[in-house]
Amino acid sequence: MLSSPRAVVLLSGGLDSATCLALARQQGFKCHALSVAYGQRHAAEIAAARRVAAALGAHEHRLAHVELGQFGGSALTDPGIAIPEDRAGDGIPVTYVPARNTVMLSMALAWAEALGACDIFIGVNAVDYSGYPDCRPEFIAAFQAMARLATKAGVEGCPLSIHTPLIGLSKAEIILQGIGLGIDYEMTVSCYQADNEGRACGHCDACRLRRAGFMAANIADPTRYRTSF
Amino acid sequence: MLSSPRAVVLLSGGLDSATCLALARQQGFKCHALSVAYGQRHAAEIAAARRVAAALGAHEHRLAHVELGQFGGSALTDPGIAIPEDRAGDGIPVTYVPARNTVMLSMALAWAEALGACDIFIGVNAVDYSGYPDCRPEFIAAFQAMARLATKAGVEGCPLSIHTPLIGLSKAEIILQGIGLGIDYEMTVSCYQADNEGRACGHCDACRLRRAGFMAANIADPTRYRTSF
Repeated sequence: MLSSPRAVVLLSGGLDSATCLALARQQGFKCHALSVAYGQRHAAEIAAARRVAAALGAHEHRLAHVELGQFGGSALTDPGIAIPEDRAGDGIPVTYVPARNTVMLSMALAWAEALGACDIFIGVNAVDYSGYPDCRPEFIAAFQAMARLATKAGVEGCPLSIHTPLIGLSKAEIILQGIGLGIDYEMTVSCYQADNEGRACGHCDACRLRRAGFMAANIADPTRYRTSF
Repeated sequence: MLSSPRAVVLLSGGLDSATCLALARQQGFKCHALSVAYGQRHAAEIAAARRVAAALGAHEHRLAHVELGQFGGSALTDPGIAIPEDRAGDGIPVTYVPARNTVMLSMALAWAEALGACDIFIGVNAVDYSGYPDCRPEFIAAFQAMARLATKAGVEGCPLSIHTPLIGLSKAEIILQGIGLGIDYEMTVSCYQADNEGRACGHCDACRLRRAGFMAANIADPTRYRTSF
């Protein structure tokens, strides 16, 4: 009997990455979950990632620190920039972290190659997202092309695949897929400014997209908020 | 008068990256030197990088820690794997670090975007190198294509350029360029297993390529070795 193929799954502890992990498990992968601590404010996400990895049957879960926050340029890493609330507007918001997904995918690539894994999962989404350039399908395709040239594994016959099972789904569709896989979304934290107990603000972009998703899916929102609505 | 354009220059403290920094300075860039500490054994390189940044007029020098060593798979980060000495052989050696240049370029990309810089310099070399896949021109081209899609800057009209001024040069040619620019290579450390004072072993791949380069260039080798030859 063949053993399960290994995959590295990027896991932030939010709704999307939890669903991505559940889908990778459903596809039969032995999942090595990776959380990257890059100086983000929302450290409650890391605690959520630990809960999610355990609940969804990750084979192992690792945390890698990367000193990305020192470069600044984002409300998620710079305490001097306020997280926008109840934002209405176009353009790339101040919560964009320069090169964040590139750095996280690079770390996943390093671990995948060390493990002998040819598959990486990332829960990016190009529909109900915030306009980040590194969530677009053309970015993912370019990263995959680069990764295949970057690695010894790529040279020796294990071409890396970057899986983005959520990229074409609306937030409501993501939630319905996850509910079908038995995910309890209460354990996930999406909020950009969750408190230490992981309770959400309800007003940042991440909260608004998440709330709207539960409403559109006609699923009761299990998110723990600091205030009631 | 226009101010100098900014560039991020990856600086390991070795011969190649020092020459790359000098060339970037010669081209008129205000250079933000970045050293990435990824768990490599040769911490003496970091001290060398500080000396080189100061001597060659970097505008600033930063060190970013990235927990890449925890994934293993390389003699440079795993004390359980010996550094090969006096190696004769083909193939990608055990000193290859999975995805190292991808991770380092990603960190440079993050800083470049935060700075508003459109230029990144990396001293990779495809001639007298050790067979690493992430030193090849096709890898660099793929990274640049990915970087232009990854960033807000790329979307908004500052396409990233990855400069590799050494990629087509032999080690002797690199040395002659650097000597012409006044570099004192004694301050650089290339050895994979330098001691705490930065003295080189003389036998690892990095030392052998460097020694052969000075010989081919007919330049007295200023490297500080632990033993004399």
